[in-house]
Amino acid sequence: MIVDRNVSLKTGTAPGTLVHIGEEKVEKPAIHVLAYDAEKVREIGDATLEECFSSIKEELVTWIDVTGLHDVGLIQKLGESLGIHSLVLEDILNTSHRPKVEFFDDYIYTVVKFIHYISAENRIEIEQVSILLGKGFVVTFQERPRDPFDALRERIRRGTGRWRKARPDYLYYAVLDNIVDTYFEDMEALGEDLEELQDVTVTDPSPEVMQRIFAHRLNMQLMRRAIFPVRDMVNHILQTDSAFFKKDMPPFFRDIYDHVARLIDNIEIARDMAATLIELHMAVTNQRMNEIMKVLTIMATLFIPLTFVAGVYGMNFKFMPELEWRWGYFAALGGMGAAAAGMLVYFRRKKWF
Amino acid sequence: MIVDRNVSLKTGTAPGTLVHIGEEKVEKPAIHVLAYDAEKVREIGDATLEECFSSIKEELVTWIDVTGLHDVGLIQKLGESLGIHSLVLEDILNTSHRPKVEFFDDYIYTVVKFIHYISAENRIEIEQVSILLGKGFVVTFQERPRDPFDALRERIRRGTGRWRKARPDYLYYAVLDNIVDTYFEDMEALGEDLEELQDVTVTDPSPEVMQRIFAHRLNMQLMRRAIFPVRDMVNHILQTDSAFFKKDMPPFFRDIYDHVARLIDNIEIARDMAATLIELHMAVTNQRMNEIMKVLTIMATLFIPLTFVAGVYGMNFKFMPELEWRWGYFAALGGMGAAAAGMLVYFRRKKWF
Amino acid sequence: MIVDRNVSLKTGTAPGTLVHIGEEKVEKPAIHVLAYDAEKVREIGDATLEECFSSIKEELVTWIDVTGLHDVGLIQKLGESLGIHSLVLEDILNTSHRPKVEFFDDYIYTVVKFIHYISAENRIEIEQVSILLGKGFVVTFQERPRDPFDALRERIRRGTGRWRKARPDYLYYAVLDNIVDTYFEDMEALGEDLEELQDVTVTDPSPEVMQRIFAHRLNMQLMRRAIFPVRDMVNHILQTDSAFFKKDMPPFFRDIYDHVARLIDNIEIARDMAATLIELHMAVTNQRMNEIMKVLTIMATLFIPLTFVAGVYGMNFKFMPELEWRWGYFAALGGMGAAAAGMLVYFRRKKWF
Amino acid sequence: MIVDRNVSLKTGTAPGTLVHIGEEKVEKPAIHVLAYDAEKVREIGDATLEECFSSIKEELVTWIDVTGLHDVGLIQKLGESLGIHSLVLEDILNTSHRPKVEFFDDYIYTVVKFIHYISAENRIEIEQVSILLGKGFVVTFQERPRDPFDALRERIRRGTGRWRKARPDYLYYAVLDNIVDTYFEDMEALGEDLEELQDVTVTDPSPEVMQRIFAHRLNMQLMRRAIFPVRDMVNHILQTDSAFFKKDMPPFFRDIYDHVARLIDNIEIARDMAATLIELHMAVTNQRMNEIMKVLTIMATLFIPLTFVAGVYGMNFKFMPELEWRWGYFAALGGMGAAAAGMLVYFRRKKWF
Amino acid sequence: MIVDRNVSLKTGTAPGTLVHIGEEKVEKPAIHVLAYDAEKVREIGDATLEECFSSIKEELVTWIDVTGLHDVGLIQKLGESLGIHSLVLEDILNTSHRPKVEFFDDYIYTVVKFIHYISAENRIEIEQVSILLGKGFVVTFQERPRDPFDALRERIRRGTGRWRKARPDYLYYAVLDNIVDTYFEDMEALGEDLEELQDVTVTDPSPEVMQRIFAHRLNMQLMRRAIFPVRDMVNHILQTDSAFFKKDMPPFFRDIYDHVARLIDNIEIARDMAATLIELHMAVTNQRMNEIMKVLTIMATLFIPLTFVAGVYGMNFKFMPELEWRWGYFAALGGMGAAAAGMLVYFRRKKWF
Repeated sequence: MIVDRNVSLKTGTAPGTLVHIGEEKVEKPAIHVLAYDAEKVREIGDATLEECFSSIKEELVTWIDVTGLHDVGLIQKLGESLGIHSLVLEDILNTSHRPKVEFFDDYIYTVVKFIHYISAENRIEIEQVSILLGKGFVVTFQERPRDPFDALRERIRRGTGRWRKARPDYLYYAVLDNIVDTYFEDMEALGEDLEELQDVTVTDPSPEVMQRIFAHRLNMQLMRRAIFPVRDMVNHILQTDSAFFKKDMPPFFRDIYDHVARLIDNIEIARDMAATLIELHMAVTNQRMNEIMKVLTIMATLFIPLTFVAGVYGMNFKFMPELEWRWGYFAALGGMGAAAAGMLVYFRRKKWF
Repeated sequence: MIVDRNVSLKTGTAPGTLVHIGEEKVEKPAIHVLAYDAEKVREIGDATLEECFSSIKEELVTWIDVTGLHDVGLIQKLGESLGIHSLVLEDILNTSHRPKVEFFDDYIYTVVKFIHYISAENRIEIEQVSILLGKGFVVTFQERPRDPFDALRERIRRGTGRWRKARPDYLYYAVLDNIVDTYFEDMEALGEDLEELQDVTVTDPSPEVMQRIFAHRLNMQLMRRAIFPVRDMVNHILQTDSAFFKKDMPPFFRDIYDHVARLIDNIEIARDMAATLIELHMAVTNQRMNEIMKVLTIMATLFIPLTFVAGVYGMNFKFMPELEWRWGYFAALGGMGAAAAGMLVYFRRKKWF
Repeated sequence: MIVDRNVSLKTGTAPGTLVHIGEEKVEKPAIHVLAYDAEKVREIGDATLEECFSSIKEELVTWIDVTGLHDVGLIQKLGESLGIHSLVLEDILNTSHRPKVEFFDDYIYTVVKFIHYISAENRIEIEQVSILLGKGFVVTFQERPRDPFDALRERIRRGTGRWRKARPDYLYYAVLDNIVDTYFEDMEALGEDLEELQDVTVTDPSPEVMQRIFAHRLNMQLMRRAIFPVRDMVNHILQTDSAFFKKDMPPFFRDIYDHVARLIDNIEIARDMAATLIELHMAVTNQRMNEIMKVLTIMATLFIPLTFVAGVYGMNFKFMPELEWRWGYFAALGGMGAAAAGMLVYFRRKKWF
Repeated sequence: MIVDRNVSLKTGTAPGTLVHIGEEKVEKPAIHVLAYDAEKVREIGDATLEECFSSIKEELVTWIDVTGLHDVGLIQKLGESLGIHSLVLEDILNTSHRPKVEFFDDYIYTVVKFIHYISAENRIEIEQVSILLGKGFVVTFQERPRDPFDALRERIRRGTGRWRKARPDYLYYAVLDNIVDTYFEDMEALGEDLEELQDVTVTDPSPEVMQRIFAHRLNMQLMRRAIFPVRDMVNHILQTDSAFFKKDMPPFFRDIYDHVARLIDNIEIARDMAATLIELHMAVTNQRMNEIMKVLTIMATLFIPLTFVAGVYGMNFKFMPELEWRWGYFAALGGMGAAAAGMLVYFRRKKWF
Repeated sequence: MIVDRNVSLKTGTAPGTLVHIGEEKVEKPAIHVLAYDAEKVREIGDATLEECFSSIKEELVTWIDVTGLHDVGLIQKLGESLGIHSLVLEDILNTSHRPKVEFFDDYIYTVVKFIHYISAENRIEIEQVSILLGKGFVVTFQERPRDPFDALRERIRRGTGRWRKARPDYLYYAVLDNIVDTYFEDMEALGEDLEELQDVTVTDPSPEVMQRIFAHRLNMQLMRRAIFPVRDMVNHILQTDSAFFKKDMPPFFRDIYDHVARLIDNIEIARDMAATLIELHMAVTNQRMNEIMKVLTIMATLFIPLTFVAGVYGMNFKFMPELEWRWGYFAALGGMGAAAAGMLVYFRRKKWF
């Protein structure tokens, strides 16, 4: 998890050779096409490449959503038809990239991540989404079908508000916004787990708790790696004067920028809290140790001298005058009781109990 | 608390849809209007939208203070009448934004935070204030009515000094300055609690104290998140050449900038102190453990050998010459006493007591 | 100490209202005037405002030193006569500002700090000095009379070297240089105390020592807050092309810059040392605990089995053949001695003593 | 390992004197030449200098791979024939340089590192590769023959795709890309070892484990030192407008840049994990100590009072009424049992077992 | 050591007054002159000021090496003859400056440090070297005679290679390069000591070891303070277009820059290692404590119940049926043995031994 495992599979192949690097997460790659303009919406569930291109030709805004990346031939054909650089196709197939945006003359290439926090397993799954924005189309490549895109499609079908204006740059923005918004849910779940961990740390510290804190730190690091570069990416979009974006788009991207900045603030705070939790854990563990030591010390300190006295009067010397005394036994018991009481007072003063 | 909880409620809705994100902190949103020029002051307690706009039309400086954000319709209508962008209205309704300033042609949009440190609960409440500065008006949106604005209104009513000149940019500055000034009070309370915590750490360390230190760190982080961006925000104001600000305003904003810079210094120092407190806590706890161990060790080391000797003379062997001696018992007692004394001298030398 | 306490006293008053914020450190504010040119020096101990201005009019270089800041009226009158902005007067009266320099058309306003490290109390006192450099005059405002200015005045009275050239920019530089030089003394005292603390940590660790280290860190933070901004301030002077400074001044300010840079290096090292001291303290404390545990373990491990053997032969069973043996007692003693010796050899091998 | 050892051998010699600084890792330096154009490939296993230059003259793209650096004369002659600055030759011979690129009129000089992580020994070997890109040639200098270059040569021999276009800038890129790709393998092995260490830390902490974590941190630092400067280096290439690189190269270098950025992300996460492992180790060790203390405390607390009671009835006083009782012995045993049971209930409630 | 002690001696004197600040490290300041051109070398062991200037006048490259700084008059006269600014002379006499370079019209002033690491005392000595490069001369000021300069002089006497071209800028570079190269030796010694410390930490941790680690950190900090500014300094030289440096010099300074960058990498790694050592030390100490606790717990847990049983059968009750049994004693011994064996099996399972 710490390191992007699959990357090195590629080592040794020539640059520019298309290879899928990553797990196969769906059985069969599928293409879903949603094309619309101000008046109509056309949708094709399991589309062929030809069906994709015909919508583009008709000047509909065409959203081609490719799910599953291991059919290299398909992606290559799609890419070549749209005039995509071979290095970009390589990047689409390799699911371990950092979020980034690259501006080309005919299209804009974007990499972002889907984050999926599985609270029960204390684990984060990160999947790559590649987005191509070209003249009249947006192509998204994802490793497996994800709910957020369904919600977005539903909104397009209803087709109210801005959607009617039918512009691919707005679709591109909506896809990005959609993905960034899902981060908040994961962040929230992480935050709740962290607060629960804090309670457990105080009430029931154990190495298992430490391991969970440890896993949290790692998760936070992975989220950080997936989210931090998005800020620079959106900034890059804002500062690049690309013909693909109309004049009214900057406020929308600035909105995403603000969201990402807030996420980063939250991640930093959560990271700091996780670090402090480790110290809290240690403090609580030490405290428990102190408690145990106190009980031991009280018991030992109380009885050790008494046992000694009992031992003395258990000695078999011929001449031990006290043994003959009428009330010797009771005097001994009384003396012991007094010593014990004195000790208890001393402990109480030391606030040991 | 760590993560802005309510944000994700919005996930899934289309960008641009107005939704209130945050808690309802007042029963019913209310609008308070205070309009003034060099000669007169007009005030309307629970104003209608029409009453707001009439003052603006009369060329009075109009301060519209909206308290409570959950009446989306009201805010939408107000926003549209003043020509506010829909994304800005969205931001006003979402109370989890970072402090920022945005310059538009017809108005300036600002987000800042009210901070309220509740010392008794070791907790920080943060509320959002949105400020719109337009031609002739300042609109503030807050989640619940707050005292500092009352003080400001009182000053306007008295209307001495600069207030007579009746300019909205000065009103805007005064609102900002007013909010930043309240941070010092919270900072001071936090600082005092931190010093008290330091004393408690030394005299009476416990996991509860650790938890309080922990809560302090979190509070400091939250303050940081609320205050740090204000510095950049004010800097942005200073560097932007906006027609809304007259030439004599920069020294005033520079003054706010200095205040925020000082607050940030203080927060950093307080954060550092909280981090050191954790180490102090651990040192004190360790010291206590040492104390307890010393008592145990002294008692055990003192009596264990003596008890052994007593055990030896308690054995039932037939031939134990010492037992027959006239002064055997007293010799044994004497020997034990001498051994104990020797041990005590040794402990004293080791500075154990 | 952590937070600038007195700041919040002001919250609620209108910006621009002159209020003294800080402690009264002298009974009665006093003005000391020292005016000189190439030929003569004129000095007035407890001057009136009129006496101040007459020297300026005569085109002498006039140094007006105001001690004590709580006579708001006096400072207001002085400020207004010299044409000082009301926000600057506010800053002069508020003793919790960060070091800074502000350039105005008619004067330059500077805030720096006097640092006074009281080694015996492990405490730092920080006082504010405001400096105004105008045409023909330098005005300094300090909270209480301080020795370094006396030394400076003495040099002016002797009037050798550069002083004869009688320029206010050089006087301004000399005042600044004088203040920065005093930082080295405090830094040195702090450094010595830190080294002494290091020795104490090793020989005699205790929570009191931890508290002293803790206080040191705080002091270092406060010094940092007072000194760090001076670097930017001097840099600002060097980069601003002000008519107040003649062409030959930059090397002098660069000299101050170097001093401050060195001070910052020293503070950073001292801070790092203080952080390491805490770890050293913990290591020494742990070591002591180990020592104590070793003694306990040696004693317990040595005698516990022996006591058990003694206990066995103290049992009252009818048939215990060993008890009847002629040399049973001595055999038992011998066996115990051998066991003890074996144990001691084992401990020695483990390097426990 | 921490410090580049061999550097100081050079201290004292004049700048500009060619000396080999580093270990001899092959017996005899060898030159391998691979020259190709669109039509043919020529390869010479153990080439002479003359054979190198003849290929260049024939306008083939010539890759001269020098293995072993201790034949100073050879490298000097090669360097002089190609017109290389004497300081560059010095750098080639000194294997402790940081990765860098230097642009000269006639060639580009690049230093990068081969990293070889030996998992079994928990150790990293770092070797230097110098790359010269000139008109028609690429010269690589490595300390020992390494597999990655063989794979590259094999691709050139097969000569498909871009290789046919036969340009030295592409060859230069391919060499760099090849080296950077090998980093991922080492990073992956390091990551796996780190995860294994995490498991061991929880199940079986020991100072040996700590030492392995420690070695990991050092390895990570060394990788960091070898990889971090590559990012700046590639950036430098991208920003320098050199005639050696055709217009289509930037996407390729950007690709390397992305790889290095990803490596750096991974290194930072791994470093952070290693730091947390140390804390996890401490927590687990503390927990173990607690376990041991609990057992001791339970045993001691349980039996110490019982032993005391037994001691009391072992005393030899004349008058001890209980001793005479018919059921005294069984009452005593019963009382002891009851006390023990009570104690066990108490411990159970404290969750000690 | 932490703070530059002697600095404050100066506080109170007027800026521009020449005072020597630092220890006297030689008995009598001496001037050594080495003048050369392409043909000849002239050397004067204990030169007068006149002898210095005559070589300069003859247009030889003149290296004036002043050893010992406490003859203020001598340095003042030398400085004035060469037209050096009084603030520069002040800096030469004050040995606590940060490395820096200052460009003047007639000369370049440079401050660097000699570092001398005394491994046996775990201590670093830092001495200041001032270098003046003017038309035809280089003047160096050092606190005591140092070997590296002898080696350099020897190379000049032999006069091969570049030396024959006789240019002061190359001499200036050679002096700088010479000093930077010595840093590697100290760094190497420090690195070796650090590795040795690591071994000692594992095999024999003690507060003395902690103190040595502590001293290492301080040394590293002092080296850092002496070396870090050199990077900026060399960068400053590279970026300043000074007539003193011919066109062919940049590669040489870039070489020094690379060396310093590498030193800084090494210092950072060594600092990180020292920080980790402290944690390793703590882990090893804790482990030792655990070992001791285990022995104690095993012994106590083993014998405490047995001793109790022995105590039970040592009671003097009239009716204790077991005591009468024929094999009671042996049954008791057997039972004890069985209990002990069971306990040992339990400990073994817990992996306590």
